[in-house]
Amino acid sequence: MMIVMKETATEEEVAAVVAKIERAGARAHRSSGARVTVIGAIGDVEQDANIESLGLEGQPGVDRVVPILKPYKLASAQITHGERTVLDIDGRKVGGDNFALIAGPCTVESRDQMLTTARVVRDAGATLLRGGAYKPRTSPYAFQGLGQEGLRLLAEAKAETGLPIVTELMDISDLDAVLEVADVIQIGARNMQNYPLLAEIGRSGRPALLKRGLSATLDELLMAAEYILKEGNPNVMLCERGIRTFETAYRFTLDLMAIPVLKQMSHLPVIVDPSHAAGRRDLVLPLSLAAAAAGADGIIVEVHPRPDEAICDAAQQLPADDFGDYLERVLAAAAVAGKSLSGEPLTTGATS
Amino acid sequence: MMIVMKETATEEEVAAVVAKIERAGARAHRSSGARVTVIGAIGDVEQDANIESLGLEGQPGVDRVVPILKPYKLASAQITHGERTVLDIDGRKVGGDNFALIAGPCTVESRDQMLTTARVVRDAGATLLRGGAYKPRTSPYAFQGLGQEGLRLLAEAKAETGLPIVTELMDISDLDAVLEVADVIQIGARNMQNYPLLAEIGRSGRPALLKRGLSATLDELLMAAEYILKEGNPNVMLCERGIRTFETAYRFTLDLMAIPVLKQMSHLPVIVDPSHAAGRRDLVLPLSLAAAAAGADGIIVEVHPRPDEAICDAAQQLPADDFGDYLERVLAAAAVAGKSLSGEPLTTGATS
Amino acid sequence: MMIVMKETATEEEVAAVVAKIERAGARAHRSSGARVTVIGAIGDVEQDANIESLGLEGQPGVDRVVPILKPYKLASAQITHGERTVLDIDGRKVGGDNFALIAGPCTVESRDQMLTTARVVRDAGATLLRGGAYKPRTSPYAFQGLGQEGLRLLAEAKAETGLPIVTELMDISDLDAVLEVADVIQIGARNMQNYPLLAEIGRSGRPALLKRGLSATLDELLMAAEYILKEGNPNVMLCERGIRTFETAYRFTLDLMAIPVLKQMSHLPVIVDPSHAAGRRDLVLPLSLAAAAAGADGIIVEVHPRPDEAICDAAQQLPADDFGDYLERVLAAAAVAGKSLSGEPLTTGATS
Amino acid sequence: MMIVMKETATEEEVAAVVAKIERAGARAHRSSGARVTVIGAIGDVEQDANIESLGLEGQPGVDRVVPILKPYKLASAQITHGERTVLDIDGRKVGGDNFALIAGPCTVESRDQMLTTARVVRDAGATLLRGGAYKPRTSPYAFQGLGQEGLRLLAEAKAETGLPIVTELMDISDLDAVLEVADVIQIGARNMQNYPLLAEIGRSGRPALLKRGLSATLDELLMAAEYILKEGNPNVMLCERGIRTFETAYRFTLDLMAIPVLKQMSHLPVIVDPSHAAGRRDLVLPLSLAAAAAGADGIIVEVHPRPDEAICDAAQQLPADDFGDYLERVLAAAAVAGKSLSGEPLTTGATS
Repeated sequence: MMIVMKETATEEEVAAVVAKIERAGARAHRSSGARVTVIGAIGDVEQDANIESLGLEGQPGVDRVVPILKPYKLASAQITHGERTVLDIDGRKVGGDNFALIAGPCTVESRDQMLTTARVVRDAGATLLRGGAYKPRTSPYAFQGLGQEGLRLLAEAKAETGLPIVTELMDISDLDAVLEVADVIQIGARNMQNYPLLAEIGRSGRPALLKRGLSATLDELLMAAEYILKEGNPNVMLCERGIRTFETAYRFTLDLMAIPVLKQMSHLPVIVDPSHAAGRRDLVLPLSLAAAAAGADGIIVEVHPRPDEAICDAAQQLPADDFGDYLERVLAAAAVAGKSLSGEPLTTGATS
Repeated sequence: MMIVMKETATEEEVAAVVAKIERAGARAHRSSGARVTVIGAIGDVEQDANIESLGLEGQPGVDRVVPILKPYKLASAQITHGERTVLDIDGRKVGGDNFALIAGPCTVESRDQMLTTARVVRDAGATLLRGGAYKPRTSPYAFQGLGQEGLRLLAEAKAETGLPIVTELMDISDLDAVLEVADVIQIGARNMQNYPLLAEIGRSGRPALLKRGLSATLDELLMAAEYILKEGNPNVMLCERGIRTFETAYRFTLDLMAIPVLKQMSHLPVIVDPSHAAGRRDLVLPLSLAAAAAGADGIIVEVHPRPDEAICDAAQQLPADDFGDYLERVLAAAAVAGKSLSGEPLTTGATS
Repeated sequence: MMIVMKETATEEEVAAVVAKIERAGARAHRSSGARVTVIGAIGDVEQDANIESLGLEGQPGVDRVVPILKPYKLASAQITHGERTVLDIDGRKVGGDNFALIAGPCTVESRDQMLTTARVVRDAGATLLRGGAYKPRTSPYAFQGLGQEGLRLLAEAKAETGLPIVTELMDISDLDAVLEVADVIQIGARNMQNYPLLAEIGRSGRPALLKRGLSATLDELLMAAEYILKEGNPNVMLCERGIRTFETAYRFTLDLMAIPVLKQMSHLPVIVDPSHAAGRRDLVLPLSLAAAAAGADGIIVEVHPRPDEAICDAAQQLPADDFGDYLERVLAAAAVAGKSLSGEPLTTGATS
Repeated sequence: MMIVMKETATEEEVAAVVAKIERAGARAHRSSGARVTVIGAIGDVEQDANIESLGLEGQPGVDRVVPILKPYKLASAQITHGERTVLDIDGRKVGGDNFALIAGPCTVESRDQMLTTARVVRDAGATLLRGGAYKPRTSPYAFQGLGQEGLRLLAEAKAETGLPIVTELMDISDLDAVLEVADVIQIGARNMQNYPLLAEIGRSGRPALLKRGLSATLDELLMAAEYILKEGNPNVMLCERGIRTFETAYRFTLDLMAIPVLKQMSHLPVIVDPSHAAGRRDLVLPLSLAAAAAGADGIIVEVHPRPDEAICDAAQQLPADDFGDYLERVLAAAAVAGKSLSGEPLTTGATS
């Protein structure tokens, strides 16, 4: 932390800040310029969290408190000395030079819908299979997902196609049921700062796909990841899914700058979800191309056998029939960034 | 819902939208202008939620989907025909012409701090006593509250002062412990869309103080309230605590327009938290005056016996010694809006 | 400026930053902590502007550039050693303990409308008279104001009522015409960063009412004020008129925190415009009460003899008949903040 | 426009709205659902602007006013029946299948810097040459550009390389000087709603590159373009250059969704400026790849012979030596979107 004092700060006010920092267990280093005094308190992440808690902003004579260190460490690029984390999801690689294509329906609706989609995306070469059994809904009157029945259908799809499963967990009390099926637990944008949920998933050790909150900064996303990592679970993927802006022409603004910047800040893989931001099928392809060209480690995309009959987010799901062409074009863009498709562990049998 | 078709929409595209709406159980009403066709689908809140789930925005020929009905009903001003809800918290009134002053430390830190503060705010005339035992923290390295020990100290403060208790619940697994102490359960801004938590508090029947999310719209706040109300719990207070904006001179921007507008949209009482937005003690008074003059039903404010020694958010807590003067000035501003202090049920004994 | 280096920065990268700062004419002070090196370059506002221009953020080894000094000086509270500026507009005081009520129609529409409104607001005790002759419109197809004819009617209203005039200037080529009528030149939110316009108004010496841009920070508002002050014109009022947020229930979010904070940052008076943010008449009163209670130096409000017939922003204009009651209630709120109405220079004749 | 009445609206209130719309010259169409009445007023863009001016939002009984038609027409995709505008800038094509690379220094600093850069970008194959003579600066203390001397150097660079010139105009009084040199007039983000400037550039007939405002929606960008088009100047390029969000890790958030969406909304070419958003050289390449893959019609990028010595925005300028490689990679990404470099009119001589 760097505490910038006001131009009018008195000697006593400076001393009071120094004393307070030292009571919190950090060393305070004073440097006075012609007009202002700045107090540096450079310890580590834990000490910074303590100093931040002090709320020095309102202390007499204090103008501003400026963080110097990053507020996370396990998620930071420094901790691996620049090496990038590559996850292994049941043999599929996520991260590094691999481009992961995670595909499947927004919501599990029926056995037929789930299995048909699973087969199509498996045949086209998808890396992982997604599908929602529990759905967070802004309105209490909206369809909330099939729940346990949805999990059962995901298990069946996995048994048939061999594809590992990505599915969302909203409520800690569903954790055990989800752990039986999910190879990757998805944490939705609204739960990015649900700290008890993050810690529990951390303790489970299961790979997690953590979506960025609707108005979260990248620092906040990485601090949320830190809650999982801190419990000893290193298997975290970050997911950009669109942020809220003033734009009314689309639901969310997909922040593709987050891709190169997160990869500088952190060693964790960065996945992009182009479906939710757009809310419209016709934008999914250009956004996917852009994400792949910008260096994303993968894309999570919604696919439905008959989107027009979907009971949830019909507009944004790609028709299963178009998925093969879509995948081919996205891989061409990923190649521009030096990445190629992360496929199955062995090329024997499963795709035929 | 009103579905606005593109100027280029074909007859088939219009028919497909109509068919889809009708499959969702609503009636579609078509009206064609010189340039565009608009399809109205006016049912009720539940039907609207279904139609919204359809994701018609991406359907061929559709330009935009415009909601017409409010997406909540139990929280709406219409449902009480304009009558305002007045909560009764152990004899204290919140809402109507009553101005509630909810005061206490940010975080329960020690027996001495908690009891000293409780006595001071009780003597000055506070309506309810606040204090955090569980604290949501952006960093996993920051102090997370005293937990159950904090709840015990709150119970002791209540026993001594007679003030009802407001405290935050973050994790459903702590619900029973919190219910033993809390007269009002606070739901923090980061949990505003934690739907399982909202529903559980709804089922508990305990009065709730629901804080607006950092980037939530008023519609979203009311839909979150709806999750509680829908479970049969009518005792909800809405709380404005500052939203995220581009301003760097303060932590959050307190949105005081929300006061008169929420009171038009909803029958629920509106409380304002001036401490967190400012993050600075010197802004708490002018913001409290403004909130009271704008017609807020109450203020929730942080008070500490020796703020400079607080281990959490020192900067924003009012010194207990100043609380009496503060309260007097705030009540003068509340009087401008026609409100007076909501005190104890009986003026006998308890304050002596 | 404070340049925070990356943890991985080399000695050469640090030296390169130091060299660059010194080439820009500032002194660089290095301080190295356990993990990072920070380079302080504390000069004055002009040097900071030069260093900011260097774009050090992208220099190898640099993590972040953190400003330490405020980027403005003539607008800062420090320059007057805490004394507040009180403007004298043709005998009316703005600032200090005075509360200024600036009232009049949104747009000058006709002789009858302008003169009727002028008389009503003068009789009720308004401080200054407002009216728009040139209107900035988002759409090129909307009514753009009466132009020179509007200025003529403002002059007539001033001649009859004795009230000084506030009117907007959008285009430098209209400056001379506006100077003939305006006692205060209004600069609209969209022109807050129109630097040639600001400088020209600065050179004119005429008092200016500078509206905050729709997404401008307070620092940016004060830097815009600095463009005027720097030309030798000390007569600047700052005006909060609502910022853009995600809220859809109102057009703009009136940022009332800006009142106490601007008064700490700057010696200039702070005026609030409650009409445009709300876009609705029924919110004008509660917002005005809140602004006055928060310590605003005045309010600029729209009044129309028959709002329902207004050709522009009908919804947000107060009926002239209600203006007297409105003013009375607002003054009660201003009294809570220790302010009283800034009236005419002498009470002889003019109001009769 | 669609006027949604409140559930509680009376027959008189509905009638009053209808009457007001009809006085504004539009036809009002009433449709009453079970719970609310909606009044449609579907005319054309001009009538909509009139109705919007009415400010019906605050009219008794009105809940909301919802625009139906787009607020622009000359900029809309409909007006050309889906055909895309291709500009011809002195023989170079912008739009359609052409990918335009606009390159040059942020600011014209010296003859040597300008000519060296011009030669490098010409040799590598750039389409147009950029360089700023007049610079809008947030601080009045920052370097404001070389002005007329900068224009002279641009003219010399054009004479030598044959590259058409893009340069910014801030002040109408500089229009004639700029017209002597500029093949394309750039309008900066802060001037996007400087309506007198837009109209004057419209009347000049010179091609314009219009940058999106820092917090402008796409509708507002297109309405700004409409101000130019309406004066009879069809030669407008839209430019996405980053919007303000809450993210602190970069200066602005480049909104790449704007590319496919603007191309659906409008027939005008869409250019992307990756330099300013990033503020950092190392992000320019991934953002350029993403923009090209998303279908941008071109990129405007900053190049400097020795960026570390630049007096303005050093951090974000590409070294001239790297420009050839950069261009090659960007063209590979543009190829994914089906576009190829827009070069010189004739490949004879000019590049040698």
